[in-house]
Amino acid sequence: MRSSIPAILFDLDGTLVDSVYQHVSAWHEALLEEGIDLPIWRIHRRIGMSGGLFVRALAREIGRSVDAATQQRLVRAHAQAYLRRIQHVRPLPGAQELLSELTRTKVPWAIATSGGRAIAERTLSLLQVPAGVPVVTRDEVSYAKPNPDLFLLAAERLGAAIETSFVVGDSIWDLLAAQRARALGIGVLSGGYGRNELELAGAYRVYSEPAEMLRRLDELGIREP
Amino acid sequence: MRSSIPAILFDLDGTLVDSVYQHVSAWHEALLEEGIDLPIWRIHRRIGMSGGLFVRALAREIGRSVDAATQQRLVRAHAQAYLRRIQHVRPLPGAQELLSELTRTKVPWAIATSGGRAIAERTLSLLQVPAGVPVVTRDEVSYAKPNPDLFLLAAERLGAAIETSFVVGDSIWDLLAAQRARALGIGVLSGGYGRNELELAGAYRVYSEPAEMLRRLDELGIREP
Repeated sequence: MRSSIPAILFDLDGTLVDSVYQHVSAWHEALLEEGIDLPIWRIHRRIGMSGGLFVRALAREIGRSVDAATQQRLVRAHAQAYLRRIQHVRPLPGAQELLSELTRTKVPWAIATSGGRAIAERTLSLLQVPAGVPVVTRDEVSYAKPNPDLFLLAAERLGAAIETSFVVGDSIWDLLAAQRARALGIGVLSGGYGRNELELAGAYRVYSEPAEMLRRLDELGIREP
Repeated sequence: MRSSIPAILFDLDGTLVDSVYQHVSAWHEALLEEGIDLPIWRIHRRIGMSGGLFVRALAREIGRSVDAATQQRLVRAHAQAYLRRIQHVRPLPGAQELLSELTRTKVPWAIATSGGRAIAERTLSLLQVPAGVPVVTRDEVSYAKPNPDLFLLAAERLGAAIETSFVVGDSIWDLLAAQRARALGIGVLSGGYGRNELELAGAYRVYSEPAEMLRRLDELGIREP
């Protein structure tokens, strides 16, 4: 018996790129425009979910339903408000170095995000992602996180078994999706969740940012080949 | 022996008013203007500290010192950036109702904030604070949170014993200050910390927002007189 090199499936926002707080602020603005006044921490804790689930969950919290037209306006207004903030979005410390090191040591990796393709591409332009690295976006699956579909498709594109893959994410939605897929979840604090929230959602290990994960790759049993 | 009615000492930002994320964003902008590129979650976890400690702590994290002139520019730039965002700041759910109920039932209460007077007054204008309620700001003490001075002065203004007072705050800095003052700390999730972070910092009880604290005042042994 010999374990294979695991594939690593990354979330994007809050995991590789420091964009969660801009998404939070953009959702807050979009919701206020529709007269939906929600405490911001509740928006924060929903970032990374599928946009449809996000709006439905928030609707439940405010105790009123949100019709399809409003939902579409919200999704559009959020996208516009996020793009107005994108000039302040930076890669997270160590993100590029971690990805480059995985590429150098031939560890297969991919990106899977609940965001739509158009927005994800703008965010991805902050990172150097080599040709051939799979990037799976919302548009390609029926259900986004916490459903496992995005990570399942990313693993399939790599030709990797999901059960031996690591999923790296900043939100409990990534970690719940990892559990559903029977992958191992790695948490990062850079999305603004507390360590314990990520551990309770099933994180096998929690790092502060990609830089710390890079320094401690040995803890995951990822070795130079 | 009979226990007295406890005084309640409230933090302001993130506890009564939904302003933490605007402060985070304002600090991020001010820091970027000085070429200081910090992951935003690290800024988030420092909100509520004394401004001086905040800048020094961030300087340690980026591994470079911040001179006094830069620190002054940062504090000024943050204030301006926050005021540009203040039109999106709202009272937290139940904040006004909780304060009104305490006033009605003659429970003494006060507000103690690490913010300076000028900014705090703008934020306070979102709440109705009756004349005679003490509001202690940064300018009135030598050391802000996590030092206990703000809460000690607030209790003194009420003529209340700090050891029988509750301190209500959204950040670990409030709860550490409460411990130093030998008060009991109550956490609220509305500043974006995880429940466990607040509990580990010493929270006797954690509520989601002021609205939940109001519904459960009995848990604190606060009764109609």
